[in-house]
Amino acid sequence: MAETFITIGRQFGSGGREIGKKVAEALGFPYYDKELLAVAAEESGLSHQFLESYDEKPTNSFFYSLVMGQQNLLTGAQGVTVEQLAARAQREAVQSVANKGSCVIVGRCADYLLRDRPGLVRVFICADWDKRIERVCRRDGMSPKEAEDKLRRMDRTRASYYGFHTDLKWGAAETYDLCINSSKKGVDAAVSLILEFVKQP
Amino acid sequence: MAETFITIGRQFGSGGREIGKKVAEALGFPYYDKELLAVAAEESGLSHQFLESYDEKPTNSFFYSLVMGQQNLLTGAQGVTVEQLAARAQREAVQSVANKGSCVIVGRCADYLLRDRPGLVRVFICADWDKRIERVCRRDGMSPKEAEDKLRRMDRTRASYYGFHTDLKWGAAETYDLCINSSKKGVDAAVSLILEFVKQP
Repeated sequence: MAETFITIGRQFGSGGREIGKKVAEALGFPYYDKELLAVAAEESGLSHQFLESYDEKPTNSFFYSLVMGQQNLLTGAQGVTVEQLAARAQREAVQSVANKGSCVIVGRCADYLLRDRPGLVRVFICADWDKRIERVCRRDGMSPKEAEDKLRRMDRTRASYYGFHTDLKWGAAETYDLCINSSKKGVDAAVSLILEFVKQP
Repeated sequence: MAETFITIGRQFGSGGREIGKKVAEALGFPYYDKELLAVAAEESGLSHQFLESYDEKPTNSFFYSLVMGQQNLLTGAQGVTVEQLAARAQREAVQSVANKGSCVIVGRCADYLLRDRPGLVRVFICADWDKRIERVCRRDGMSPKEAEDKLRRMDRTRASYYGFHTDLKWGAAETYDLCINSSKKGVDAAVSLILEFVKQP
């Protein structure tokens, strides 16, 4: 098989990570999620802890960045925020692991970063609201109320991070090649559907 | 197989209609697209021509309808606009064909209308912008510029119609069970993926 890059965007609590891992296992591909932080840390010289604090989070100072961008346009000044530094290390890590060959990458705008590679398959996993709450309660030991707050926060955070670093809309069907609601038929069914899609000529 | 209702939302020029027809043929299900108008006309007594002029079009007088809705709340008046009459006939036609058993329905908010039926599979078909233009030029004999204008208008119209009649977002992955970009692997691959999804336990 030619080189294949499967990127997985996912709603928080949708099972996207589990699905990504299983797809990677089935294909014998390396899997990158938090693992990208180690790559980014090693290659950029920035600390793992520093990178983790900016991982998939939109800039803490959105208006500040806008202003900085504006100043750059006006003055040509080369101000680089810490968020930009972390995002650049992440971007380079995504390209670096893709340069090594076929892989599965979860999140981190990898679908957008790898958009010019022929073997790209862009997947998005979502799930029913109540199933997501159940999953997060079970996995992270939260109350339903805490899980609900976290879902809302994480959806907002991911959409905002994605919107900031791409010109596409996070979670819109047209941003991806294949979107699956994992609540309908379950995680394993989603895995086999992705494998089927990848194998199609 | 238990009763199965496959609804297909689609971007204009994405091949959604062709995909829906092929899925219906493969499963031996009746297929409804424009065919719903005949059902609606027969059951409502409204003319086919009248229904067609409101088919999947948002109300022509959005603010008027808002005001009417407001007046209804305030006064309890039973004002029914012609758009509401057409939409009601459409809704009743969707339920009526579903009452007869398994089927494939393209558009008309059928995914939302049938949301309480257990055998519902909600599909959305999108495609790359340039592939959509190609398809519309070829199919409707338009220039690329005309096709582009029509794509933008139809996307807006469908999103607006859907948003007006449901509480969900047209084209958002989380609105559906399965979304496929038909440009990636083609129409037949999309058909076989939908069949695979439907067959999954």
